[in-house]
Amino acid sequence: MSHIDENSDHETRATAEDRSALRLWLRLLTCTNLIEGHIRTHLRSDFDITLPRFDLMAQLERHPEGLKMGELSKRMMVTGGNVTGITDQLVDEGLVVREDNLKDRRAYIIKLTPAGRKVFKQMAEAHEKWILELFSGLSEKDVGTLYKLLAQLKQHVSVIAREHTPGN
Amino acid sequence: MSHIDENSDHETRATAEDRSALRLWLRLLTCTNLIEGHIRTHLRSDFDITLPRFDLMAQLERHPEGLKMGELSKRMMVTGGNVTGITDQLVDEGLVVREDNLKDRRAYIIKLTPAGRKVFKQMAEAHEKWILELFSGLSEKDVGTLYKLLAQLKQHVSVIAREHTPGN
Repeated sequence: MSHIDENSDHETRATAEDRSALRLWLRLLTCTNLIEGHIRTHLRSDFDITLPRFDLMAQLERHPEGLKMGELSKRMMVTGGNVTGITDQLVDEGLVVREDNLKDRRAYIIKLTPAGRKVFKQMAEAHEKWILELFSGLSEKDVGTLYKLLAQLKQHVSVIAREHTPGN
Repeated sequence: MSHIDENSDHETRATAEDRSALRLWLRLLTCTNLIEGHIRTHLRSDFDITLPRFDLMAQLERHPEGLKMGELSKRMMVTGGNVTGITDQLVDEGLVVREDNLKDRRAYIIKLTPAGRKVFKQMAEAHEKWILELFSGLSEKDVGTLYKLLAQLKQHVSVIAREHTPGN
């Protein structure tokens, strides 16, 4: 807490800062939950799919070279999905393939099929529209400011998280 | 998309905005996940408890009059916890009680016990310290700006989510 002025009342100041950081965290979490919930509802009603399934396909779309199961799990951005179960379903539906991994015979590589990419494209376009609508209450300038401040937050949090990882 | 200038190239403009809204959403989600992950790790290593358990106790702390099971489930801020299971555990440990609801005999009221409040207080103090550390990369002014912009986002998202709720 080196940023606290030595001359101020440490106790009061620290408490006030605790509160504003805590309030900010709760607001951040609330915004994320509201947006995630809205996307979840839309994916269900418009495409009859779950958010983890969308998320899994989105990760594969970003990696045309394919991902190992472990990498895929690590990249998932939403919790609550069974990665193996979803992959099995998508394979059954012909939207995803498991390919032999030449570098590591024990680990398959998971990829979208051309059909999977086509199906994902439709969902991704709808998803972008919903996100655009949700964020349309902010001006372009506000979007930029928010993006910049969250970059700062992300950078700081990443450093702290890394320092606290067991073994570091 | 009434805020788009009629004279600009709609297609290009919309696409650029889609991208920046989408990028902002992914960054928001990443920040939330990083912070949540850090808190989850700390709760596990320092108190040997899960985040849903902490969240459940936090909701009860905010409602000394107690909450019905359904209200408690709705107020949970993290997903992945089994609210009934966690409540059963906490009752067994004497940290939470189920009281008869005089207004509705079918629905119990869940409350923290004095022991539960004491245990929660220790965890909440640690939790506030971790949050303060995670957000200490932002100046007081930045915290205020972020809080204000997220309020705007929350307000807009709430309106859209309400409009889209089935039955409205």
